[in-house]
Amino acid sequence: MLLTDPVAILAELIKMPSVTPNQAGTIDYIEEIIQKIGGDIKRVDSNDTTNLLATIGTGKKILAFAGHVDVVPSGSHDKWLNGSPFELQRHNDELIGRGVVDMKGAIAAFLSALIEFNNKAAPEDYQIMLIITSDEEGPATDGTIKIVKKLQQEKVQLDYCIIGEPTSSKVFGDTIKVGRRGSLTGELTIFGKQGHIAYPDLCINPIHKSLAALNELVQIKWDEGNQHFPPTSLQFANLNAGLGVTNVIPGQLTTNFNFRYNTVHNSDSLIKQTESILNKYQLQYTINWKHSAKPFLTKVAGLVDIATEAIREVCKITPELKTDGGTSDGRFLIDVSNELIEIGLLNATAHQINETTTVSDLTQLTAVYNSILHKAFYG
Amino acid sequence: MLLTDPVAILAELIKMPSVTPNQAGTIDYIEEIIQKIGGDIKRVDSNDTTNLLATIGTGKKILAFAGHVDVVPSGSHDKWLNGSPFELQRHNDELIGRGVVDMKGAIAAFLSALIEFNNKAAPEDYQIMLIITSDEEGPATDGTIKIVKKLQQEKVQLDYCIIGEPTSSKVFGDTIKVGRRGSLTGELTIFGKQGHIAYPDLCINPIHKSLAALNELVQIKWDEGNQHFPPTSLQFANLNAGLGVTNVIPGQLTTNFNFRYNTVHNSDSLIKQTESILNKYQLQYTINWKHSAKPFLTKVAGLVDIATEAIREVCKITPELKTDGGTSDGRFLIDVSNELIEIGLLNATAHQINETTTVSDLTQLTAVYNSILHKAFYG
Repeated sequence: MLLTDPVAILAELIKMPSVTPNQAGTIDYIEEIIQKIGGDIKRVDSNDTTNLLATIGTGKKILAFAGHVDVVPSGSHDKWLNGSPFELQRHNDELIGRGVVDMKGAIAAFLSALIEFNNKAAPEDYQIMLIITSDEEGPATDGTIKIVKKLQQEKVQLDYCIIGEPTSSKVFGDTIKVGRRGSLTGELTIFGKQGHIAYPDLCINPIHKSLAALNELVQIKWDEGNQHFPPTSLQFANLNAGLGVTNVIPGQLTTNFNFRYNTVHNSDSLIKQTESILNKYQLQYTINWKHSAKPFLTKVAGLVDIATEAIREVCKITPELKTDGGTSDGRFLIDVSNELIEIGLLNATAHQINETTTVSDLTQLTAVYNSILHKAFYG
Repeated sequence: MLLTDPVAILAELIKMPSVTPNQAGTIDYIEEIIQKIGGDIKRVDSNDTTNLLATIGTGKKILAFAGHVDVVPSGSHDKWLNGSPFELQRHNDELIGRGVVDMKGAIAAFLSALIEFNNKAAPEDYQIMLIITSDEEGPATDGTIKIVKKLQQEKVQLDYCIIGEPTSSKVFGDTIKVGRRGSLTGELTIFGKQGHIAYPDLCINPIHKSLAALNELVQIKWDEGNQHFPPTSLQFANLNAGLGVTNVIPGQLTTNFNFRYNTVHNSDSLIKQTESILNKYQLQYTINWKHSAKPFLTKVAGLVDIATEAIREVCKITPELKTDGGTSDGRFLIDVSNELIEIGLLNATAHQINETTTVSDLTQLTAVYNSILHKAFYG
């Protein structure tokens, strides 16, 4: 029996404890649905990650839905209502379970919308792709990026790509993400010379040497942002020096910091500016840079208009177009997408104990996805 | 048989592995010597610490020798020449073993000088005290301070006090310590608000909040020092913030720092100035102060002159009068001493693997102590 109700599909997906990168049956379940509605499936598995590339229809215009079945760990079961994060709990309108928001809810909504669209309303020449991975919450090195590479090899370009990440902030539908900031992390070690704290002249205190330079780094206004992006932000996450005893000047200080940066910058410009400050203070240091995401911004053209109109119809509000928050698989998908947006549920409880959405939000998201499919292929 | 040679006495003391606070027979051995030369002994033991207060003679003028039998751990035995830190090794002029420098060598030298003085040269009315503890290398909470309290209770004031800490820097006899700096430690926690690094506006990064204030603290010239003391020094020993992951802004930063301060300041003035800077930057913080030593300076009067002259005679050099380096039990003894100095062996290898002195340095130190005894009681 083919379930079509998004709450029922979500209940099936929640039942499978797909803690990253274990798909735990979720992708098999999605494949069954796709096969039942006549679609085609390919696996692009990589190491311990399961990646599904499904295709329904053979039209020239391609709309893709991208998402992940993996979830973060549930934490202690006994902290959850009813003690069962992997059973969908319903309390009046509320739906509780690990992954309801991030992002099995969106997958269930899209599958429900797709089944209805396919059964009742689809034109002859359409093509819908599903790009589903089990490695988004983990290192994301074997997930969506592998499907993107396969699409590039096959020279497939997506016209529209919709990611189901939870983007709504205060009420469902208030936000469409039209891009994301880049992420650049620096791992910095500043060297001094260790020794007895009573003889500072024989030592070089790496804490003392570092403070002025680090203070200059945190005072910098890197840019003002632009129309679509907030200002670039530098944040220190860790700072450690010392042997734990009070009578020794340590030999080194280690720290790491993260840039969330916009399209005014690129990673090279940030690296250059940071290192020039470290050099100005004549620090002895080593630095290891990790560039985990470049910033991207979709073309604000047909897809954004379609999605905005769909939300207006369903939710009676006009969504804001935003680029804030963490990274998403959009950083990979932008390379094979003409236009790319993210629309999903309220993100307030993502990753938390008692992750919660509502039947009404899930129903509205299903309606929004359904409306987008109509507008995309009939518009 | 009463050993009188300082090398022989040192060999006995080294044999007993008196790692702090275990006296391991060393104080029993010293007591035997004192009893053999007609002295009187008292124990002022406290918890796991053995404290000896020995008195020879009944004269009104009191010269005390203060020292500690406890040593720091030897480290791996196989890193030592011959693999035996607790057997005195002799290689030509060199004497190697844990504690030869810090400070069983000085105890052996003083005992040797005392025996000779007592046997051959002492006037009728003299009084020499030995103040020996097994807790100087440890927390020093049950050691010399307990003997000082006993002396205060008995209203005993020492005319001269000599501490046998290794004070020599380049060659034996080059330095007499005439005081020590104070030591004040601050344990500081600066509070922020934890959160996701992609949403810095929802967080308060305690690293960012702290850097300017900490940088101002390390840039301060607290004072210029004075005739006897180097400038006050502030050194940070530990600085820690962060959860170890790169995507979380931490909730707090902890650090500790240590002042080695001179007689221009007192602990209250340093505390007040430090906290005024933290307040100026409007930091949310808690601070815990530990005042482990106040600075002291002996009267530069008879004892310094006697010791200087003794060194000139024995070593043919003029010692410098200094106050640098770590703390010593002088911080306690100054309260019961009219004059207090520290003279001992070369400190270069103290606490190290293959701690080393020489037969010639030990012989000279014995001669210096002997000369001081003569000058003190016949001068």
